[in-house]
Amino acid sequence: MKRNIAVLQGDGIGKEVTRGAVEILEAVAQRYGHDFEFQYGEIGGGAIDSTGSPLPDETVEICKNSDAVLLGAVGGPKWDDQPAHLRPERGLLKIRKDLNLYANIRPISYYSSLSESSPLKKEFIEDVDFVIVRELTGGLYFGKPSERVEKEGKEAVVDTLFYQKSEMKRIIELAFSLASERKKKVTSVDKANVLESSRMWRETAEEIAKDYPDVILEHMLVDNAAMQLIKNPKQFDIIVTENMFGDILSDEASVLTGSLGMLPSASISTNGPNLYEPIHGSAPDIAGKNLANPIGTILSAASMLRLSFGLEDEAKAVEQAVETVLEYGLRTGDIANGQPTITSTSEMIAEIKANL
Amino acid sequence: MKRNIAVLQGDGIGKEVTRGAVEILEAVAQRYGHDFEFQYGEIGGGAIDSTGSPLPDETVEICKNSDAVLLGAVGGPKWDDQPAHLRPERGLLKIRKDLNLYANIRPISYYSSLSESSPLKKEFIEDVDFVIVRELTGGLYFGKPSERVEKEGKEAVVDTLFYQKSEMKRIIELAFSLASERKKKVTSVDKANVLESSRMWRETAEEIAKDYPDVILEHMLVDNAAMQLIKNPKQFDIIVTENMFGDILSDEASVLTGSLGMLPSASISTNGPNLYEPIHGSAPDIAGKNLANPIGTILSAASMLRLSFGLEDEAKAVEQAVETVLEYGLRTGDIANGQPTITSTSEMIAEIKANL
Ligand SMILES: CC(C)[C@H](C(=O)O)[C@@H](O)C(=O)O
Ligand SMILES: CC(C)[C@H](C(=O)O)[C@@H](O)C(=O)O
Repeated sequence: MKRNIAVLQGDGIGKEVTRGAVEILEAVAQRYGHDFEFQYGEIGGGAIDSTGSPLPDETVEICKNSDAVLLGAVGGPKWDDQPAHLRPERGLLKIRKDLNLYANIRPISYYSSLSESSPLKKEFIEDVDFVIVRELTGGLYFGKPSERVEKEGKEAVVDTLFYQKSEMKRIIELAFSLASERKKKVTSVDKANVLESSRMWRETAEEIAKDYPDVILEHMLVDNAAMQLIKNPKQFDIIVTENMFGDILSDEASVLTGSLGMLPSASISTNGPNLYEPIHGSAPDIAGKNLANPIGTILSAASMLRLSFGLEDEAKAVEQAVETVLEYGLRTGDIANGQPTITSTSEMIAEIKANL
Repeated sequence: MKRNIAVLQGDGIGKEVTRGAVEILEAVAQRYGHDFEFQYGEIGGGAIDSTGSPLPDETVEICKNSDAVLLGAVGGPKWDDQPAHLRPERGLLKIRKDLNLYANIRPISYYSSLSESSPLKKEFIEDVDFVIVRELTGGLYFGKPSERVEKEGKEAVVDTLFYQKSEMKRIIELAFSLASERKKKVTSVDKANVLESSRMWRETAEEIAKDYPDVILEHMLVDNAAMQLIKNPKQFDIIVTENMFGDILSDEASVLTGSLGMLPSASISTNGPNLYEPIHGSAPDIAGKNLANPIGTILSAASMLRLSFGLEDEAKAVEQAVETVLEYGLRTGDIANGQPTITSTSEMIAEIKANL
């Protein structure tokens, strides 16, 4: 199989971790007889420095001409004081819109070898296995107006939470279709006791539920969801929610199992290549020091193999190799939990490759 | 001292827990020679049933004529399918507006006797002691438009996040003044990389910080805050944030220490009586069974003594009595954590009274 992969390394540890994922993808290609070609594009702070834009047109072109996109991470203190339109994160928001990445999918699962690293007691997180499906191109993130206004001569400001019903439908449908292949439960999170948009969201979920009679639909208010994620994370299978709630809850969920640096994500396009990235940030403090955990990006590459290329065996092989090295006891600093010897980024990559 | 206290029992366990707090307030009055008069008003589902409104005008009058308001909890399955304007929670939103309750204050602190009940490992929550200051009368909760719309012939919906700069100022000022009497650190939570309102919030915080040179101001993005609350809750002193972020983060924070049923809150008015309530809900499943934990409401009454009446000694006496009964090992079901004998609501109230 021949595939073009766009690689956007971004800033900070983005370079090191994407390098690792590319090495693994190359090893997979060789081992299984595929031909993966990699095109590199700039995004984030580095792109601002060299082109003046956090997402140059050329990068968008490279992505649109690819079969899938691999992203590292963007941002760093160097660009923190820039005006809004010149900040690295703008590159992320723009690529979501430009590639129609309407759904962000984040699996959260328990690794028994890492339970020591979790802030939660083992009995609360054992066997946790759920997926957060976050709407990614609507809501408060893109609604207009978003501006300073004057009201009765006084300074004020407005942001807008806007959704089309069709945008709700497609993401909730995706959640149900994922649930129907898993534990058959969808928890739809909203704030229907306050927001009109949440009441439309809830109605839409009810409508779609009719097409999936074997999947249970449960509604949960966002404040309660923020509690339930900690009190009883085992109850969840698929959580689906709008953009801002999803941003908050998915980051909250990512720390439950103590494996933040290992979590992959996939952003699904309506009509073009999907984008795969670890959920961690650019970690400027450890960038370039061969300390970053490459597993989040490597598992994102495994998701690419599965979801974009339909290469289930290859995806499983990568995931299996990761589990094996963890069982050996290899640990980068973020998951070492006081263990004396820590594994470097490059060693971790080499060991995963050796276990493919 | 003579004071009028409005009591809004509400629904579910609201009646049992407010009854407990009133008993304690009466005991305090007797012991310290005060005269507290209690006026009862309806709110929530019960009010809908008897008057057709979740917050009858008469209740608002009772509150406005009081020196402080004590609230139980509202809501229950009976009213879940009502249209939005006839739901118990509307009573809560309306009373916040009618009494100008601009700030909700929730202290989160560690009780060593309860660490078993927490989902978090002891080393993460020991000595946790912070306060969430949530803006309560602005933002997405009250912005207009909040309605269904048509866009290019398609169904859509809009909600509005609106703030006046003066609304930001007064709540952030309150946060700084609280911090200056505590650990001298304010964490201002926003989403300044996406929202214009958050950028105004951040500027406002910077401006106010200038008046408090001994207080450290830190900005944190809301998604990161949702993580940090679990990863490292000890880092916080005062967290201040807008209404919706505050709703989510304060509920998340309430489960950290395993003492949800014990947490009080105070809502501060710009110009009239403050309102005090436990943070737990109406728990319809255990209502009327003498099982509810009255401590959240009793500690809310202690806050009333301190903040509305300036009765510091009396407030401390109530808090001390609560600590004493916990040290004896008295536990309602929610904090029993598998312990065989559980204490009933009425026993708990009687014991706290006996230890005043
Ligand atoms: C960087 C920021 C704009 C972004 C978001 O809020 O979506 C990030 O937090 C994420 O979740 O990918
Ligand atoms: C009942 C609901 C409207 C309310 C809110 O969202 O403010 C509640 O969750 C709270 O936090 O007091």
